[in-house]
Amino acid sequence: MKHIKTVGEMAKVAGELKCSGLTIGFVPTMGYLHEGHLSLIRRAKKECDYALVSIFVNPSQFGPQEDFSNYPRDMEGDLAKCRHEDVKVVFTPEAGDIYPDGFSTSIEVGKVSEGLCGALRPGHFRGVATVVTKLFNIIRPDKAYFGQKDFQQTLVVKKLAADLNLQTEIVVAPTVREPDGLAMSSRNAYLTQQERAAAAKIYRSLASARSLRESGERRPDVLEQKVRGSLTEEPLIKVEYVSVVDPEGDKILRNVRDGAVIAAAVRIGRTRLIDNIVI
Amino acid sequence: MKHIKTVGEMAKVAGELKCSGLTIGFVPTMGYLHEGHLSLIRRAKKECDYALVSIFVNPSQFGPQEDFSNYPRDMEGDLAKCRHEDVKVVFTPEAGDIYPDGFSTSIEVGKVSEGLCGALRPGHFRGVATVVTKLFNIIRPDKAYFGQKDFQQTLVVKKLAADLNLQTEIVVAPTVREPDGLAMSSRNAYLTQQERAAAAKIYRSLASARSLRESGERRPDVLEQKVRGSLTEEPLIKVEYVSVVDPEGDKILRNVRDGAVIAAAVRIGRTRLIDNIVI
Repeated sequence: MKHIKTVGEMAKVAGELKCSGLTIGFVPTMGYLHEGHLSLIRRAKKECDYALVSIFVNPSQFGPQEDFSNYPRDMEGDLAKCRHEDVKVVFTPEAGDIYPDGFSTSIEVGKVSEGLCGALRPGHFRGVATVVTKLFNIIRPDKAYFGQKDFQQTLVVKKLAADLNLQTEIVVAPTVREPDGLAMSSRNAYLTQQERAAAAKIYRSLASARSLRESGERRPDVLEQKVRGSLTEEPLIKVEYVSVVDPEGDKILRNVRDGAVIAAAVRIGRTRLIDNIVI
Repeated sequence: MKHIKTVGEMAKVAGELKCSGLTIGFVPTMGYLHEGHLSLIRRAKKECDYALVSIFVNPSQFGPQEDFSNYPRDMEGDLAKCRHEDVKVVFTPEAGDIYPDGFSTSIEVGKVSEGLCGALRPGHFRGVATVVTKLFNIIRPDKAYFGQKDFQQTLVVKKLAADLNLQTEIVVAPTVREPDGLAMSSRNAYLTQQERAAAAKIYRSLASARSLRESGERRPDVLEQKVRGSLTEEPLIKVEYVSVVDPEGDKILRNVRDGAVIAAAVRIGRTRLIDNIVI
């Protein structure tokens, strides 16, 4: 496994790979790798010649009051996992190499980054879009892999890639869950034992809306109310939003059709968690 | 000469060129080609294996009250000129292919796009940065060529390429001038005969500041006043700005040093013209 630490070397190696005719499957991560990330890596390996993983906790997608400095990090553990998955290249740039002094450019993807998490985390998706564009320009992957758990992020990245002609196919892979249904997330590490038990309620609440939908209910507000009601049964959970949207992320106002997504963001203690399922 | 009209074909051809080991020298233009453009093409041919020219009047860099619909166009003449210069590929996309329905992404380069023309043409450099990023992602040129006449644009594009890791070297070539000193510009075509005669005053005024500088004057306000005074001798000229800036585009407040630029924007009738020289 090649471990690359600088933008310059990464661009050079990626350019060589590119012109050797081999395809690059890129998995951008913020590290602290879990089974969700590993599922993306395995998919990339299956679909491309090379799996290339980046580990970079991107400061520009965190708000000033958010958890950038506390975000869990485990570089040695992450490298061991990548090695174990037979990743060919791991790219771990320094923040000063990605954002040198005087860096001033930002990318706004528009409508799809408003609403849901975009409404509660101003600037978050601008940070995501900017770093993804930079990483794609450095690496020029054939495909890039993102998890469905970060539903709005997948919409933003797909729109970004299309609008800026990034020439990378965006692949969205299913959310990987713990046995009790909790979506895998690096932020689960923040939870106390008691909070962790409470967090199982998120998926159960989303699943309850799916059951209701399957029994014929199509009104988005009723489905949202079902999830909200279920979540509030758990006193440790504070709901940020529950929203039924279409596959393009637009709020559904009338009847739910196939492919609709119900997404929720909650706080448990100081930890913010998101999840979504197709209903 | 290959004439390519779609983004899809352009990306495919550029990818093939790229991996054949040949270098691409890209000259993005809005057409109505003049000697300034041709000098860029010749430079691209000298420094790269292929000269690739795009002709695209980019709607997103024009303000609502600006001259997008009147901008001079001469596709047949332009293609003939490219053929004559032995350009290998001309790319002439349709606006609907560059900006499909629902397009919503924009790129803001920050500080360098404020001031000068940026202050008078809100959104102009956002439009430039966005289309340049798209064209670079489609074509992935080794080098791209811009004229010094559009001084602030060269700063914006250099910052954009660095900040987004575009991996294209930005080459800035000298302004090409008419015998009386007027900078070549597609917009010169708007001028009446009388206005055209008056327009020669722009370069003469800038040159008068250079002479003053060469005789020892280093105060930016005095140099600006010299140009402003000279321009206003010509009744057809209305000054938008005259500004002494450093090579990075920052306003110079104290003493001028080597490499400083004096830039001006004026209106003559309904035509807006810009020019600048190093002093």
